[in-house]
Order: sequence, then C-alpha cells, then structure tokens
Amino acid sequence: MVQDWRSLVAQKRAEVAKQLPQEWRLPTEIMSTISETANVSVLDVPAKCGILSAKEIDITENHDAVDLVEKMAKKELTSSEVTLAFCKRAAIAHQLTNCLTEMFFGQAQERAKFLDEYLEKEGKPMGPLHGMPVSLKDSFNVKGVSSTIGYVSFINKKPADFNSPLVEILLKAGAVLYVKTNIPQTLMTADSENNVFGRTLNPCNLSLTAGGSSGGEGALVGIRGSILGVGTDIAGSIRIPALCCGAYGFKPSTDRIPQGGQANPSRDGWAGIIPLAGPLAQSPRDLRLFLETVIKSKPWDFDASARAKPWDSVSTKSSLTIGLIYECPSWPVSPPVLRSIQTAAKKLESAGHKVIPIAKFPSYSEVTELAFGFFDIDNAETGHKFIVDSGEPVVKSVADMYSPPPGGRPTRTLDNFLDMTASRSEIQETWHKIFIENDLDVVIAPGAQKTAVPHDTFKLPPYTTYWNLLDYPACVIPYLRADKSIDVARAEYQEDYDASAVDGAPCSIQVVARPEHDEELIAAVEIIARGLGV
Amino acid sequence: MVQDWRSLVAQKRAEVAKQLPQEWRLPTEIMSTISETANVSVLDVPAKCGILSAKEIDITENHDAVDLVEKMAKKELTSSEVTLAFCKRAAIAHQLTNCLTEMFFGQAQERAKFLDEYLEKEGKPMGPLHGMPVSLKDSFNVKGVSSTIGYVSFINKKPADFNSPLVEILLKAGAVLYVKTNIPQTLMTADSENNVFGRTLNPCNLSLTAGGSSGGEGALVGIRGSILGVGTDIAGSIRIPALCCGAYGFKPSTDRIPQGGQANPSRDGWAGIIPLAGPLAQSPRDLRLFLETVIKSKPWDFDASARAKPWDSVSTKSSLTIGLIYECPSWPVSPPVLRSIQTAAKKLESAGHKVIPIAKFPSYSEVTELAFGFFDIDNAETGHKFIVDSGEPVVKSVADMYSPPPGGRPTRTLDNFLDMTASRSEIQETWHKIFIENDLDVVIAPGAQKTAVPHDTFKLPPYTTYWNLLDYPACVIPYLRADKSIDVARAEYQEDYDASAVDGAPCSIQVVARPEHDEELIAAVEIIARGLGV
Repeated sequence: MVQDWRSLVAQKRAEVAKQLPQEWRLPTEIMSTISETANVSVLDVPAKCGILSAKEIDITENHDAVDLVEKMAKKELTSSEVTLAFCKRAAIAHQLTNCLTEMFFGQAQERAKFLDEYLEKEGKPMGPLHGMPVSLKDSFNVKGVSSTIGYVSFINKKPADFNSPLVEILLKAGAVLYVKTNIPQTLMTADSENNVFGRTLNPCNLSLTAGGSSGGEGALVGIRGSILGVGTDIAGSIRIPALCCGAYGFKPSTDRIPQGGQANPSRDGWAGIIPLAGPLAQSPRDLRLFLETVIKSKPWDFDASARAKPWDSVSTKSSLTIGLIYECPSWPVSPPVLRSIQTAAKKLESAGHKVIPIAKFPSYSEVTELAFGFFDIDNAETGHKFIVDSGEPVVKSVADMYSPPPGGRPTRTLDNFLDMTASRSEIQETWHKIFIENDLDVVIAPGAQKTAVPHDTFKLPPYTTYWNLLDYPACVIPYLRADKSIDVARAEYQEDYDASAVDGAPCSIQVVARPEHDEELIAAVEIIARGLGV
Repeated sequence: MVQDWRSLVAQKRAEVAKQLPQEWRLPTEIMSTISETANVSVLDVPAKCGILSAKEIDITENHDAVDLVEKMAKKELTSSEVTLAFCKRAAIAHQLTNCLTEMFFGQAQERAKFLDEYLEKEGKPMGPLHGMPVSLKDSFNVKGVSSTIGYVSFINKKPADFNSPLVEILLKAGAVLYVKTNIPQTLMTADSENNVFGRTLNPCNLSLTAGGSSGGEGALVGIRGSILGVGTDIAGSIRIPALCCGAYGFKPSTDRIPQGGQANPSRDGWAGIIPLAGPLAQSPRDLRLFLETVIKSKPWDFDASARAKPWDSVSTKSSLTIGLIYECPSWPVSPPVLRSIQTAAKKLESAGHKVIPIAKFPSYSEVTELAFGFFDIDNAETGHKFIVDSGEPVVKSVADMYSPPPGGRPTRTLDNFLDMTASRSEIQETWHKIFIENDLDVVIAPGAQKTAVPHDTFKLPPYTTYWNLLDYPACVIPYLRADKSIDVARAEYQEDYDASAVDGAPCSIQVVARPEHDEELIAAVEIIARGLGV
C-alpha cells in the first residue's frame, strides 16, 4: 500500500510541529503578518516578541561564538543558558522563516547540562566548542534524528542510527546540537522549498529567497537563531544563503571538512565536482573557530574521504595583493552588487592593500556551462527518481532549472565526462597562472550576480559555481545593503531588476584563495573584513 | 608522405647511438655476452670493465645521494666529478640493459661545472640536491630533449620547449639531469619494451624483466647508473621495476609530487585512478631526500595539479604497529615472495614491532578487476591510436594484456564509471576502518605475486595496483633474493614457477600507509629497513 504523498507530508509536519514547545509560540498578531509575499524584515522580532529574556537577547545578539565559548569556559555563562537562548531564538526564527526541519531542544538542553557538569567536574572544557550550540543542514546524520532532505519518499525512513563524521567531531569538541535546517528539493536550487517542509523565507525580507541549498542555515544564521551553522556547497549552497541573508559563508576546499556519512540527495559514486561542507557564521573569527576546530580534530581519522592535511598556521600579512573581478561581461551583475564590489575595492585600496583588476579570465558563462555539465552526469536521474517515487510534484525552482529539453535529456557519455575533466584542468591551469604571475593572495569578486531576489527567481548561480569548478576555497562577506535610492538600473544587467523589491537586501563580496589554501583564505577574510569595517 | 615506421625507428636509434661517447663503449667481448636470453647478472660489469676510475667506482658504489650531496657541499667532491662518474656508469648500464632513451651527457657536465662555480662564488649550495645527478623517466619534459615515450608516431615531434614542473623544481634544487629512461609501449605493462627503443633488460639477470613501466629507471638504479631516479606509477610502475631490479621505489599519494607537464601516453582528461610521480633509489634516506626536497619546494606553486600540502615533520616512533598481509587467497604468491614477507614479519616482530595479521580485507582479485576497469575508460583507445598511427606493431606484453575480447571491447559508459567510483569508495572505507580499528601505522604486504620473471611473463600486477585504487602511498624495500635451493614450488601458486630461472632475483616487501601519510610512510620505511638490517 503506497501512502498518498499528501498524507505523508501531513504526518511529518505534525511531528515537526510537536517539536516546537507551546510556550515559545509567537502570538497570532505576529504570525498573521508572516507570509512569503510580505515585503518586511523580521530581524527585530526575536528581541521584541517577549519570548526571550533580556539576558537571552544579549547572549544571542551581542556576542559571537568565540566570545560565548570563552565566557562558558570561564563560567561567566553556562551552556544551559546559552543553549536555551539559542533554542528559543531558533524556535522563533522557524516560525518566522520556516528554516528548520528538525528541532531536538530537549536533547540539546540535556547535553548542555551534561557539559556544564563536565566543566564543573573536570575543571576544563570538553573542547574548543564546549557548550556552543551548532546548527546543521538537514543532510547531516545525527543519531535518533531523521534526515528527510526534503524528499517525501524519505519520510518513512528510520531516523539515523549513526552520526556523520563531522557531527562526531563537533560533539567531541563539545558542541551542542539542537536543530537541523531546511533545503530545496534536490538540494540543487537557490530557493529552499520542498514539499515536505515547505519554503524557507529570508528574515531580512520575507518576500525574498533565503538562498539555497543551505537556505535554512542562511535564514537561521541571518536572524541569529544560530551563530554557527554547517552547510554544504556544490555550486554555492553555503555562500548563496549567506549572501542572501547577510551572513558569512565559507566554502572550504574539497574534503578538508569531512563530508562523509550524509543523506545523499543523488547518486552514489558521484564524481567531478564534489559537494563539501563548511560553516555559516556572523563573524570571521567564528568561521576560523569552526575550521580550526574541525581540521585540528584530524577529520581523516573519522572519514575515509577527508583529506589528511593538517591545519597550517600561516603568518599574517599586514597588506594583501588582491585580484579584482567586478563582473564577467558574460554575466553582468545587478546595480547593488556592482556598487558593493566597487566600494569594497576602493576601500581596500585606501586601506593599503594592492588591488589588481584581473583583465582576462575564463568566462563565467563557459565555466558555468561546464559545471552544469558535471551536475548532469547521472543518466539515471536519481534525484528525480526520489521525487517521483512518492508521487510528489516537482517544485517550481527545480522545474524551472532542470526540466529536460523538449527532445528529452541527452545521455551523457563517459567521453563527455573525460572531455569535461580535460576542460576543467585547462581552466585550473589558467587560474593557477593568474594567481602566480600576479603574486595574488586572494581574489575578490561578486558572490552572485544579484542579491536575494523574489522567490523562485534566483536561478543560475555562476558567481559561486565558478569556484566550485575550480575547487578554490571561497568566502562570502556580508557588506552593504541594496538601496533603491542609489542602485539604479543598468543596461548591462539583463535580468529583471526591481529596485524596490530588493531594497535593503544584504549585499556582499566573495573572497577566493588558491586550492587548499583555506588557512590563507580565512586569514585574508579577517584582514579584508577589518579593512571594510564590518 | 608517411614515413615507414622502421625507417623512423632506424633514424631515432641512430640519433640515440650518437649520444653515447665512443670512449665509454664496452668492448666486444663484453657486448657479445649481452642478450635478453642470457641468464647472467651484469651488476659487476661497471666496476670491472675498465671505463670507470677507482674514484668513479667509489663515487657510484659506496655512497648514497645524501652522502654525495653532503660531500659536494663540503667541497670534498665536485659536481663535475660526481656527474662524470654517473654519466659514465649510466652509459655502461645502457649498453648492458638498454635502459636509456636520451643521454645528454654534455649538457650535464656543463651544468655540473656551472654548479661547481656557483658553490665557489656563492659560498653555499644552490639547494638540497646541489650537484647531484638525477635520472628521469622518458615522459618528463626537459627543454631541448625529446619525449618519445616509446611511440613511433611521436618520433618526429619536436624536442620539448619547456620543463615539466617537477624538472623545474629539481633544477632549482641544484640537480644535474643527464639521462631519460625507457618504458613499455603504452606505459601500461611490466615489460619495458617498445618499438622505438627496444627492450630494457634486468641488470640482476638479463633474461628477466626489468619491470615497468619505469623499467629503464629500475634497471639504471639497480646497477647504480643512477642512485636517484624519477618514475611514475598508476598500477605499480615505480614499484615493479624497483622490486624487479633490487631498488627502493616509493609511490607517493596522488599529486604530492607534481605530475603535470609530462608527455601523455593516453587521453587528456583522464579520471579515476591517476598516475603519479615518485623516486627510485638505493637507500631510504635518498627517498626522503627526494620527497622532502620536492615537497618543501611548494610544488603547488609550479603545477596547478599538485596538492598544496606542506611537508609535515612527523615524530619518529621507536616501535610500529604493522598490519600484515602474507598474500591474498585470490592471488597466491610465488615461493620466494612468500618466504621474504614471512621472514620480514618475523624479523620485525623480534625487533620489537607489533605485527598484526589482517585476517579480512577486500580481495586482490576484486580490487584488481575494478582498477583495470578504471584503466579501460577511454573508449577512443587513445594509446592504441598512438600505436597504429605509425603502422608499428603492438609489442607482445601489450598484446597479451590488452587485446580486445573476440566480440570487441565493450563501450564503457558514464554509469559504469560512477558505479566503479562508488565501489572504490566502499573499498576505501573498509581499509580506513582496518587502519583505524587496529591503530596501524603501516601495512606490510608483498610488492608483487612474483619476483622478476622471464620477459613478457609478468602480466597483471595486483599487489601494486591494489594501493593505486586505494590511493595509499606505498614503498618497495628490496629484501632477500630468490634461492632455488629453498624456494620450492607450492601448490597454491598457480602461475608458472621456474626456480632456476629466477634464482638470485631480488625479493622485496611493500610498506603501505594511509592516504597522504607520505611523511609517516617514509619514516616507517626507514625504521623497517633498519629492522630488517638492509
């Protein structure tokens, strides 16, 4: 007996609803203002709604994770207090943006209590994340918690009976896990909508996309329901939600943060461009805290696919040599994006950094086409099968981006794959030369051709995908906001641009370093953020 | 006008013959004893033939590269003396075993003179290989030298107009390049025969294979015409020649030694199991000298494909935990191979190391089949095209191993490739568990199921290929020799075994470490070699 997909969804949604404590529910007068067409920011709701105490507001708004971990280690704060504050704020965030898939607040508070006792008893923290709540994209497996990843056909799967290697590492470092976060159907669009959990909204403006695929993380970190979250990225899935929601998002080099043991939205044996895990946060030093903690835990002892490259302490430079890409002529950027990168470049130059415009580079159009060839290597269309298995429909953003052409999807051959691999190597060699010949520390470039835009209109993400094809680590820094009074339409930008719709949306820049130079990248991000005054 | 392949070969051989100075030619009484059926060792010929001075014999026989580099730095020896000694010995080796493809002794001696003057003028060596002759597999590009890699169709290609990144690094480290070495047609067999340069013989016994594909390196290092050579390995191509010719051969993890910019015997865009570069030598510390020199040169600055993993100084252990594989039941080993690994295990145990037999591991038969599936991903059969382009015939070892089945070679699909990738990951996960659960430092296993055997009978190399599929670094240590008086036939060994034919052939063990644990591997090799008294 196949259960109707709607009843499966109803069952799952009822279960999730039960995870939300009654006493943290927002009043109807707030909830009635929430909709995916409401052109409003909800960033101020947590502090105003009356659910958080003054101390909880302070904990969640005025500190970063580095700060909180230090305060907990010094016993100025307990993990129980910090955890409760973030559980409550995440619950509020979820009601406003639909950012969560699983809430396990009870276990989180037990874990926090255990950690407080541990500190008391042992006289020292369990590890560098002692007591700190960390949110996880739904694909990570946590013992006893479901990993539905937005497929109705996954609803009746048993909860995970193991922890993903990264989860294991975070727990050993003393983290507290409390929520998992929403994603798009297939995990391959920038609109985090699926039929199981619905659509995640952007806390900066509910009528705009929260980005994807780690859109739940973006929204949650954007509204500080978490200040340290974990996403994954194969085409921008960490960086797009970050830049849509005003957070930092760091895409490390492949396999430096262990990626194994996740619920897989596609085919086993995936090759070519590989997804990878990385942090979203609200400060560069929290990104560093995450990266150093995980890599110093020797992830290669936990995960067969993790690279055995120890954390490398790089010496800090006072002045950087920065390559600059304003935009690619093949993919012009929207007015606020152009203004942000131009302003950043000027500011960094006047802060004493050497900024070198990169005149010639492989076109974003060519690279994006190649990357999407790599994303289309599964002739069995496994992700699509996971959809049709249950009878659920394809959501709009997936239908828009991945509907086969009228003549049907051509079969990809092994020869296609090897040709693409050869083309990829050539592009990597070209960029290697650009970095070496200009003696660049990093490149700054737009993180996307647009800011967060109305739902289901984000579409292709060339500015992030570019660096996945290259396997260059890349980090989004939130910087400036769209402003309809100055960001006037430009002829070059060929997509719809509605200055009013995106007014106030976060803007950003993207910082990129050479492959496996994650240490150099985070160091540069810290320097650049300082240079930008953010 | 297509030139007949035979005349192209005659032209190329005449050019190579000219590179061999008249005064270093061996007398007819020696040359008349040289043939691929002569069951004789020629290891003693260089010292006896009268071409080398007593000092040259001492330089080439009684020192390793570490020692020579130190003596040159202290001006106890000049690079000119050392280079001349190895040029002469390589010329002798070539006449005995046909191990070279290109000799550039004149340039080598000019370079040595330059380095001697450099040391005089600068007061310090150019780098850690200052003055040291290093031999290269034919596939490496050296400015002004041809890279024919055994294809007749490559004979009329222009000499290289650039140095491979690894060559560039070696030169910056002060190395002297003087010869390139022979390989098999296609580079995919363990018999280094091709129609351009002919067959390389084993200096330990001319009637036996020198191994392949870095067979010229194996023979040259085996007879000490070089004591530091560079090979490449996709299925055992460094380790098989080493174990056939009584040398050390170190297969690093993929892309730690830069592999880029070589003449490519196959298709661009190759994926799956990737070839890699590594050293052959006559002492563990010379392997270390090579690895440290190259990796400390930051190969990722020279080669877009090189991993950016700095050399990691690991602390030296006094006692190792060693996993042990005697043989795989699916591929029983020959009597001298079994005796060598058994003797090594006992000796290491009595030297205080913990030796843990690995009872269960993925079968060599299954892994080898999977690996050869990866080697067969090029439906265009590019390597074969390079052969037929000139009209040259396929050599016996290639025909024996790669002739298509009667019904023709089946087309490999992208789905096959992804399935193979999934299977490979599973095997990697299994081995990850074996290492972690047993807390192993390394595994010792046979390097091959046989010693060097009569020409064209080596065939499949499961014992080396196994670790290419896993991408585990692996090193062959020469240890013991086949002895017809004790290595009696065993029923389990299913291939031809002729105790007399292989009598005296070098035996070996293979030491294997976890992925990217090249530093741990070389440290373990040093300890194990000491433990074995070699």
